[in-house]
Amino acid sequence: MTNLMRGTELARDIVLRASEKAAGYTERTGRKPCLATVIVGDDPASVTYVRMKQNRSHKAGLESRHVALPEETTTGELVAKIRELSDDPEVHGILLQHPVPRHIDERAAFEAIAPHKDVDGVTMHSFAGMSFGHSEFVSCTPGGIIRLLDAYDVEITGKHAVVIGRSPILGKPAAMLLLARDATVTICHSKTAGLPEIVRTADIVVAAVGKPKFVQGDWIKPGAVVVDAGYNEGNVGDVDFDAVTDALITPVPGGVGPTTIAVLLEQTVDAAWRELDA
Amino acid sequence: MTNLMRGTELARDIVLRASEKAAGYTERTGRKPCLATVIVGDDPASVTYVRMKQNRSHKAGLESRHVALPEETTTGELVAKIRELSDDPEVHGILLQHPVPRHIDERAAFEAIAPHKDVDGVTMHSFAGMSFGHSEFVSCTPGGIIRLLDAYDVEITGKHAVVIGRSPILGKPAAMLLLARDATVTICHSKTAGLPEIVRTADIVVAAVGKPKFVQGDWIKPGAVVVDAGYNEGNVGDVDFDAVTDALITPVPGGVGPTTIAVLLEQTVDAAWRELDA
Repeated sequence: MTNLMRGTELARDIVLRASEKAAGYTERTGRKPCLATVIVGDDPASVTYVRMKQNRSHKAGLESRHVALPEETTTGELVAKIRELSDDPEVHGILLQHPVPRHIDERAAFEAIAPHKDVDGVTMHSFAGMSFGHSEFVSCTPGGIIRLLDAYDVEITGKHAVVIGRSPILGKPAAMLLLARDATVTICHSKTAGLPEIVRTADIVVAAVGKPKFVQGDWIKPGAVVVDAGYNEGNVGDVDFDAVTDALITPVPGGVGPTTIAVLLEQTVDAAWRELDA
Repeated sequence: MTNLMRGTELARDIVLRASEKAAGYTERTGRKPCLATVIVGDDPASVTYVRMKQNRSHKAGLESRHVALPEETTTGELVAKIRELSDDPEVHGILLQHPVPRHIDERAAFEAIAPHKDVDGVTMHSFAGMSFGHSEFVSCTPGGIIRLLDAYDVEITGKHAVVIGRSPILGKPAAMLLLARDATVTICHSKTAGLPEIVRTADIVVAAVGKPKFVQGDWIKPGAVVVDAGYNEGNVGDVDFDAVTDALITPVPGGVGPTTIAVLLEQTVDAAWRELDA
């Protein structure tokens, strides 16, 4: 039997609590927690994502500051702009929309984000924090995945989690967060031999490949938990959803996606509060 | 059949090349690359290790600076001392001997090491660098393990590597370095269920548990590569060496251990050169 892990409802809860905390912050300071979003170029999907993040921010009582840079922006210019936001006391969180144009050194740009404003969890500092189990900001999608598993009472300790994909902002941090929660974690990728057999041993599967319907139904052990972090053209995930017959699984859309934005907003509000407490 | 991966010979090669580079540095600058070692308390094993590192440094033409602090040193005092070394232009590399007394926040102490002097690869910055495949300093033992595998022409790409242990300076960085070399990596630990069965699927096993003879002979798939990073009292590794009958395996002692120090010296010399080039 297939049961769904619905991210939409969970996200609503997370955003509701974040908006209450945002209201408390505004009451105390007269200001709103502020998320700065940075986009380079005009990739339509990225533009849509960023707009969505801004809209949700406003609805939750956050302020948003938007920086749109032209496609031809250099790494140096982007780094300078992000440093400016890192130094701006009115900005609490910074999000650089991924991916940036190919000519830009994305890692250099991410590293220009001050660690205490890294509400999207993309810096090297945040990654190591996630890996070592410190209470740094988490990468939003992996963070949302853990929240989903917890909301559906999925036991993680001692379970075998197989993460397919190893990007620095999705696969690797997801693996590290699952490990911090005491899963036995296997990280698979394009060079993995015998992927179907490995996935069949998984109690928890995290698909983070970016290829539509890549994970086949018969790769899934009956009763496994399947988290589809893919979001491909045409609202299709990385898992062949219809072919999975016995699992607790996230739908696409309405699974991982909404929790990502919710965690982003929550961490922005937390950043604002932490700064007050510091 | 059991074949040995001998670290002693490999380490000799690495140190030889490092000492040539050190001599070149001295010829150019009139100074020697300098490694600062810091120890807190008087744990006999730690004292021995540090002395060994100093002796090897001297033999390789490096200078060493030693800081011995009393057991009752506070985190603040240790951090201040390490910051001083981080700021000292005559020091190229800093090693804080692990473990420190329990009352000290080891992570805070490690983070006081400037990233460009982190020749032992223990900072959050270095960990993320290893994870993302940048050319930062590597954690010395995991770095030595990769060098051993390469020296013995072990294919890593696409192979299943099982790392037992997940400490921030051994298990986790070893997993990340193997992943960066395109292994499929499983990270196991004390909460792992069915450990023997998982280890039996491994092409490459890295034992980093710190428990004598913990890994049993019948856990090892015939023909597997076994890296024993354990070093327990009485010169005993984490693997029940005598019970492993068909593998390419590191002995203890004379396996991983010597390569650790060799990588430390090499990275110290590299740090000195990089500083010149910077």
